[in-house]
Amino acid sequence: MTVKISHTGELTKFFEQAAGFANDEGSPRLKQIILRFLQDSARLIEDLEISENEFWHAVDYLNRLGGRGEAGLLVAGLGIEHFLDLLQDAKDAAVGLAGGTPRTIEGPLYVAGAPIATGQVRMDDGSEEGVATVMFLEGQVLDPAGQPVPGATVDLWHANTRGTYSFFDQSQSEYNLRRRIVTDAEGYYRARSIVPSGYGCDPQGPTQECLDLLGRHGQRPAHIHFFISAPGYRHLTTQINLAGDKYLWDDFAYATRDGLVGEVQMREDGARGVSGRYVELRFDFQLQRAPDSEAEQRSGRPRALQQV
Amino acid sequence: MTVKISHTGELTKFFEQAAGFANDEGSPRLKQIILRFLQDSARLIEDLEISENEFWHAVDYLNRLGGRGEAGLLVAGLGIEHFLDLLQDAKDAAVGLAGGTPRTIEGPLYVAGAPIATGQVRMDDGSEEGVATVMFLEGQVLDPAGQPVPGATVDLWHANTRGTYSFFDQSQSEYNLRRRIVTDAEGYYRARSIVPSGYGCDPQGPTQECLDLLGRHGQRPAHIHFFISAPGYRHLTTQINLAGDKYLWDDFAYATRDGLVGEVQMREDGARGVSGRYVELRFDFQLQRAPDSEAEQRSGRPRALQQV
Repeated sequence: MTVKISHTGELTKFFEQAAGFANDEGSPRLKQIILRFLQDSARLIEDLEISENEFWHAVDYLNRLGGRGEAGLLVAGLGIEHFLDLLQDAKDAAVGLAGGTPRTIEGPLYVAGAPIATGQVRMDDGSEEGVATVMFLEGQVLDPAGQPVPGATVDLWHANTRGTYSFFDQSQSEYNLRRRIVTDAEGYYRARSIVPSGYGCDPQGPTQECLDLLGRHGQRPAHIHFFISAPGYRHLTTQINLAGDKYLWDDFAYATRDGLVGEVQMREDGARGVSGRYVELRFDFQLQRAPDSEAEQRSGRPRALQQV
Repeated sequence: MTVKISHTGELTKFFEQAAGFANDEGSPRLKQIILRFLQDSARLIEDLEISENEFWHAVDYLNRLGGRGEAGLLVAGLGIEHFLDLLQDAKDAAVGLAGGTPRTIEGPLYVAGAPIATGQVRMDDGSEEGVATVMFLEGQVLDPAGQPVPGATVDLWHANTRGTYSFFDQSQSEYNLRRRIVTDAEGYYRARSIVPSGYGCDPQGPTQECLDLLGRHGQRPAHIHFFISAPGYRHLTTQINLAGDKYLWDDFAYATRDGLVGEVQMREDGARGVSGRYVELRFDFQLQRAPDSEAEQRSGRPRALQQV
């Protein structure tokens, strides 16, 4: 027998009080969100007959998740961040906003304030020379008509050969593999970097603990993150995911999308001043016009800022 | 226009995959819970048109909440812990389990392993002598027929005059104001302690940040927590909330209930070896018979354990 009380007048009133509806202070918007959250939580507890032990293990899990700063990783792994992209796609379609390079998830590992440069930029600090494969990454930022966008900011970040990111991996130098490149007169960005390895969740972390219980791995294909912005154009958050990676279409964060697969070209021709094998990766981005000035900006998501 | 996609076949399938329904590993129970959580979250995001900024501030909030270990405090403050008590009351009523002292919330500040004693126990370490009012707290543990229960364990904990708890307040001595008292042949527990002050959420913490936005305070009346257990009886988690406190019926954690108000008697008679004013507080507890052996135990909630 499933006992339910959350629909009763007494509980309705109680949740309204807990959400602050009995007072005129605070944020009406947050009150609305919290009331819905309380109602949904109560119904979930009732419908699934959540036990005391299950409930308190969830509370303990939240403490451990936040204690490790993995809330952003979990929402990626559970597909909620990808859902937000799909929902925004649907909202765009409903108002006729279409075209250009697809968006995909930002992930939790951006750090604000990377060095700004023009021309060809070296992104790696050389610490993995001999281990890493040199990668020449370049392409154009284009407008909806396919014309170059000079002066666009290409803010890109990626992992090293161990799949870890500077700042979060304190063994790396400041802003290693993070740069902001301003496109040239032909809309080009050009970077010399190293081929990243795929990212994997910390096997000891709470996100992987959850994924294990869902029978899922916590691996991503090798990829490169991008914020692309320019005055008059809509901000684009996206990624290049590298063709040939075994996790390309089995990404635990569901970030790989059609139109976001990068084809790596192997070279060993002594050109570009590199002895031995290196790779070239060309990827162009096409922006939408910004429907308003707010659309030029990335979201106000709280982000890490390197203290230098 | 509200755009919704979470009801579509595509999204239904996506959430099932994210929840691990596409594999046979892991925990079928957690998969069921996560699937419901994903569906509820997506609907909430759609129905309330949660913005990107709102979503990412919530994720950041979860990191800060867990970073401070306040998830247990927040579920108390939002009334979810009290809801669990009301739901258990309703479940009890549905199977005819009734009578005895009401349950109320445990809260997040229990520490396992407090010293065990019989007879009258001194709970405070004397560090607040001259500041605190001495409190003699005693009463009987009774069975459903009103007969004493000897050998019951009365595991009690309360705050000091600043409203803080040992272990969480590292300035207090180990297990200050925490004891396990075994009832005597007449079912009596007897403690000499100090009158606690009400607890207030850390004004800089994430729980109070949320309460502020809901226009709510984060204060509790002065109170004493109890776990009461004895072989053959149902475990009882409850509290005495002190009459006369301004927050008695305005408790941010909704723990005060009829039948759980303690009347403090002021004395200044030189008895009990105390010079000046002291208080007496008598409170009896009545247990239910345990319907099964599992009911004799408290929940498996993860709890702090003092490292001594």
